[in-house]
Amino acid sequence: MKPRISMITLGVTDMEKSVKFYNKGLGFPKMDSPPEVAFFTLNGSWLGLYSRDALADDAMVPSEGSGFGGFALAHNVASEAEVDQVIEQALSAGATLSRKAQKTFWGGYSGYFKDPDGHLWEVAHNPFFWIGPEDN
Amino acid sequence: MKPRISMITLGVTDMEKSVKFYNKGLGFPKMDSPPEVAFFTLNGSWLGLYSRDALADDAMVPSEGSGFGGFALAHNVASEAEVDQVIEQALSAGATLSRKAQKTFWGGYSGYFKDPDGHLWEVAHNPFFWIGPEDN
Repeated sequence: MKPRISMITLGVTDMEKSVKFYNKGLGFPKMDSPPEVAFFTLNGSWLGLYSRDALADDAMVPSEGSGFGGFALAHNVASEAEVDQVIEQALSAGATLSRKAQKTFWGGYSGYFKDPDGHLWEVAHNPFFWIGPEDN
Repeated sequence: MKPRISMITLGVTDMEKSVKFYNKGLGFPKMDSPPEVAFFTLNGSWLGLYSRDALADDAMVPSEGSGFGGFALAHNVASEAEVDQVIEQALSAGATLSRKAQKTFWGGYSGYFKDPDGHLWEVAHNPFFWIGPEDN
């Protein structure tokens, strides 16, 4: 196995709403695709949206589930000001604030928002090193 | 906001077990880091492991949750044989088979395994186009 995550697929309950959030709201470039799925070509990996029930069915797990999904996506940026800007953009697009941006115990600065299905995104500035893909 | 996922952090209940699974079992390169967190530098994004409770606490959400987490990670490979090989490797490392690899309705070939915390990985061959980062 190669050290690679090709795509992160999020289960969603309202595809149209979620596509609008990620495409129009956050500015993620969307590929042409059939209406039941959406692929966003990101820098480093892809983001996929698929019906929550269909995703569970595809993986052959029960779709029932509630509460904390057990994961978070991180979007790292170059400054504290950019953390604030990105969170503001996400809230304007319909996200919910989960944790206001603040200094962290590890010496960085970050906050969390929830997408329309409650999936968590941390927006973070790490002054010590850069995480993940470089900007194009 | 730039189209970028810097890191995917998975909440885990047994850090030592999960680090062993991803590092020794799947071969993901681990960064030096404090014992309460693990970072794997992947090609395109990073994978993080963090205590499930601590991750929920960091995001200020209740850590309670059960059932389907609402997401899946995909690892795309170059052939159907490689799908089988990767799933076999994951099962040898302690993963659980969720869906046996098979032809898919969209013309590809894929299967799913669950990591030690039940997080879903799809291993897929898409004969039509390549998804996510190129191999180094």
